[in-house]
Amino acid sequence: MEQSILNERELEFLLYELMDTEELLSRDRYAEHSREIFDEILNTAKKISEKHFANHNVEGDQNEPAFDGQHVTTIGETGIAWDSFAEAGFLAAHFDFEQGGMQLPEIILRSAMLYFKAANLATSAYLFLTIGAANLISSFASERHKRMFIPPMQDGRFSGTMALTESGQGSALADIKTVAKPVADGSYRIFGNKMFISGGDQDFTENIIHMVLARIEDALAGVNGISLFICPKFLVNDDGTLGEHNDVAVVGLLHKMGYRNTTSTALSFGEKEGAVGYLVGEPHRGLSYMFQMMNESRIAVASGAAAVAYQGFLASLNYARTRPQGRLPSDKNPGSKQVKIVEHADVRRMLLAQKAYAEGSLAMCLYASSLFEDSQTADTDEQRKAAYQLLDLITPVVKSWPSKYGVMANDLAIQVLGGAGYTREYRVEQYYRDNRLNPIHEGTEGIQGLDILGRKVFAGDGAGLKLLLEKIRQTVMVASESENCHSFASSLDNACDILIKVTEALGQAMMADVDLALANATVFLDMFGRVFVSWLWLQQACIADQVLSTGDINTTDENFYRGKLQAARYYFNWELPQIGPQADLLVGLDRVPFEMRNDWF
Amino acid sequence: MEQSILNERELEFLLYELMDTEELLSRDRYAEHSREIFDEILNTAKKISEKHFANHNVEGDQNEPAFDGQHVTTIGETGIAWDSFAEAGFLAAHFDFEQGGMQLPEIILRSAMLYFKAANLATSAYLFLTIGAANLISSFASERHKRMFIPPMQDGRFSGTMALTESGQGSALADIKTVAKPVADGSYRIFGNKMFISGGDQDFTENIIHMVLARIEDALAGVNGISLFICPKFLVNDDGTLGEHNDVAVVGLLHKMGYRNTTSTALSFGEKEGAVGYLVGEPHRGLSYMFQMMNESRIAVASGAAAVAYQGFLASLNYARTRPQGRLPSDKNPGSKQVKIVEHADVRRMLLAQKAYAEGSLAMCLYASSLFEDSQTADTDEQRKAAYQLLDLITPVVKSWPSKYGVMANDLAIQVLGGAGYTREYRVEQYYRDNRLNPIHEGTEGIQGLDILGRKVFAGDGAGLKLLLEKIRQTVMVASESENCHSFASSLDNACDILIKVTEALGQAMMADVDLALANATVFLDMFGRVFVSWLWLQQACIADQVLSTGDINTTDENFYRGKLQAARYYFNWELPQIGPQADLLVGLDRVPFEMRNDWF
Repeated sequence: MEQSILNERELEFLLYELMDTEELLSRDRYAEHSREIFDEILNTAKKISEKHFANHNVEGDQNEPAFDGQHVTTIGETGIAWDSFAEAGFLAAHFDFEQGGMQLPEIILRSAMLYFKAANLATSAYLFLTIGAANLISSFASERHKRMFIPPMQDGRFSGTMALTESGQGSALADIKTVAKPVADGSYRIFGNKMFISGGDQDFTENIIHMVLARIEDALAGVNGISLFICPKFLVNDDGTLGEHNDVAVVGLLHKMGYRNTTSTALSFGEKEGAVGYLVGEPHRGLSYMFQMMNESRIAVASGAAAVAYQGFLASLNYARTRPQGRLPSDKNPGSKQVKIVEHADVRRMLLAQKAYAEGSLAMCLYASSLFEDSQTADTDEQRKAAYQLLDLITPVVKSWPSKYGVMANDLAIQVLGGAGYTREYRVEQYYRDNRLNPIHEGTEGIQGLDILGRKVFAGDGAGLKLLLEKIRQTVMVASESENCHSFASSLDNACDILIKVTEALGQAMMADVDLALANATVFLDMFGRVFVSWLWLQQACIADQVLSTGDINTTDENFYRGKLQAARYYFNWELPQIGPQADLLVGLDRVPFEMRNDWF
Repeated sequence: MEQSILNERELEFLLYELMDTEELLSRDRYAEHSREIFDEILNTAKKISEKHFANHNVEGDQNEPAFDGQHVTTIGETGIAWDSFAEAGFLAAHFDFEQGGMQLPEIILRSAMLYFKAANLATSAYLFLTIGAANLISSFASERHKRMFIPPMQDGRFSGTMALTESGQGSALADIKTVAKPVADGSYRIFGNKMFISGGDQDFTENIIHMVLARIEDALAGVNGISLFICPKFLVNDDGTLGEHNDVAVVGLLHKMGYRNTTSTALSFGEKEGAVGYLVGEPHRGLSYMFQMMNESRIAVASGAAAVAYQGFLASLNYARTRPQGRLPSDKNPGSKQVKIVEHADVRRMLLAQKAYAEGSLAMCLYASSLFEDSQTADTDEQRKAAYQLLDLITPVVKSWPSKYGVMANDLAIQVLGGAGYTREYRVEQYYRDNRLNPIHEGTEGIQGLDILGRKVFAGDGAGLKLLLEKIRQTVMVASESENCHSFASSLDNACDILIKVTEALGQAMMADVDLALANATVFLDMFGRVFVSWLWLQQACIADQVLSTGDINTTDENFYRGKLQAARYYFNWELPQIGPQADLLVGLDRVPFEMRNDWF
């Protein structure tokens, strides 16, 4: 059956076979839920995404948001999509019952979000940013500000943004220059310029709540002088009505190669008397708060990359199944019938790679959401802490791996379609353009590499890595018993040894020369991702092998599980072995880029 | 100094240090030429490309050609660019003096073309297609048709196309359905539909000469039933004036993700009485003739990919040198000055990779042109034959390697620019879109893989491969003596052994099961490309090492050669080792994509 948006069977597999999402129902918080409710929610997400998001994915690309110097406008379907999402309750769904939510588990919310991202990556950005901003307010703001801002962000009257980046600083948050001056009523006046602010303006919500990083006057230089502020587009009166326009102005829109229906804005705060801002939490701790939203957004970006990778896979698979062209090399009869291109081994290679990347990415992102869930609601402190440590370790990988391989998957989707693939008459070239932003925004690959190698793997004496390796070795032990999986198990076991050796070598090197040790951090990130996703694929292979060995399944399921096994084979034979040369570079502390000089280029 | 289009120093190095282009001057054909004339020609190309091609690269992308149902229109700058190229004599330059040309060597013509491609890939496509079509007529058409078509194609009144592809057949030329019916005057009437015909219509030449593949009625099925026809848009009278509109109509334009200012047309031949076509050469031998233009176009596509890869490298290098952001990991002082991003090792990695890909690609394409030159004008039959065999072997690699790695280079250029990279305010996203067509048109990677493994490496009992390996081993022998290059030499020597082992194993496998043996041909193609470009980098490293060891050079040159050495180091340490896992897949006849089934996806 041709899938148009994601694949219910795949999601079901990830949620209930790869992960034990039903186990959540035993937690008190979810006592009123059931598998049927989860299914119903996912089904609602699928329907709305098909009706109100997929409908304008191309149109939003071709008619990007416009700015006339005063107002930003988006195509009308954007607002209808927003309303349909809000009306279905998704903006509030994960909040507590007493906060107006339905206590939806994180992993179900994020699975639902996958449908919207798959249907329309650009329009869905407004959704996840608003959820993230509301979460940030919920976690750290005063009760007054929670009351003021969260309800209208839950019902869709207000949207939210994260306003970090400035033109002079980019990835280097330590250099933020925006200033906040305290005033007598306890609020602040904000002065500065932000850019690349996604959703920084639009025409379909009454108000926009910017979560702004700024320095209180005379704060320390660097990250310890940054505070977090709520800065609404329109001031909000205590009775909830809107007051005057705050001193926040759109300076312009950035014109992107993809993801176009998300406005990317340059904003000016305080061109006149200063923009009213409300301090969140303690002064100077803003960056640590903002990391909540950044981490959430990193996983959200990755799941968008995964969803779009999957859409490209589907589109190219459908094309390959229906497009006749050529014959097998062994068929020398020019009069014989052309085969469908899926019959060419090289086309199947490109489809298998996409399957391995896209389904691996989906598994990675949902696993991260399950860890987030456990870090909040697992039964014991120890379990919550372990989940947090693991999530903290893998966040840079979860951000970057689906982003990088999502673009590669979309590249292969274009290649499968051949000439049709590069024309705008087909969808895959837009997927490719949309996805190309993902390895950059919310932290480039380079930034994620420095994060994992410079901080995460050695944090808490390597506690997160130890936990991960324990889990991997457990899977390896089980898989070693299986006829179809034992060779993968052995490869992964070996890969873990290599990862440990490389990590230890780099840890040593870090003490001698941190600049040299971190010079190839991006390679370490990729290598780590290969090992990590191999674990996810080994688990999937073991499940498939287990089901297939019982024998008693229908043809549809048999095909599904055989596909899983073959994709795992692809990953273990074709992709994991590339860690060999990567490890050589890393252990040998390769100095080639490190020693290259500007003048030599 | 900031380069805007290519780099004269780089071209000079490739032509006169890596290759011995001055040696051509000793050949009778080039007795009237000199190094100064070559330099003057390249300088003219640079000036015209800057003035008339670079000026509308962005505009042509933003205002793609339009079709109103009757006429195709392009932006006016396209025609001005065309005229400036024609007026400078480039369309005729490589023809014999008696044919109205200036007997320009192939490698100088192709070097000149690099400037136009770098300045404006899309507009330059009209140029190289016209040159290729004129060459095809010159090689195989009757004297009457040469007189009729070549002079106006030399002076720019007529342009040319290659009309191969049909919607039902794509890469599988054997299945061409267009029909040619003989009529009494010796000409034919052509009926059929072609698509993806680049330059198939436009508004700046008086006439367009389509080189059309079609089957004469009752011809054999398959490639041995295909003939080649000249089919002009307007008929040409014997006195050279234009006659009536031929029965060739534009059905529509394809809308591409990049390369937009080249029209890509769907053409209908013979909607009324049949399009007048003139048979070229013998009936049923059309595909073998057309291979001349296809091979020429394959190298032309690759050199466009190389030029655009180089432009992305320049743009991202200039950005990295001027954009301040962040500090080195060892600098914990938030008050210290931000460094330029070229100071970050990971940015230098991305620049080095681009340099290795782009300069390796330029070297590869110009080497192919030098082989073409030698195949035509070398002193002895033996030399000409050897050059031809070598060129025939490497053509699929020369087509595909720069195309694949050109896109990867442009991907890295975007990544260097970060958020700026994905905005249309900068040039790199257009380079990326333009270049993404190159791994598809003129034969996809899959097609080139089948060509090299299924035909080229084993042709003439492996004569081409033997020649190449001999040349590589000679370089290895010389490089082994150098302190700075001997480790590269040893790696390349080893890589040759691996390539031989893999080729032999696949040759054996081919006899048992050709479908299985060719299943991973695309991997073989990539592996072959890595070995081949490593040879080109080893030669460059040896030259650099040689010059640097003499000591007596100025700083600019010293930097240039140190950059060459470091780029070679990058390639040998970072890229060549990946042939290890590739060889394992190939020698082991990996069956994963081969055995994957349609139903399992």
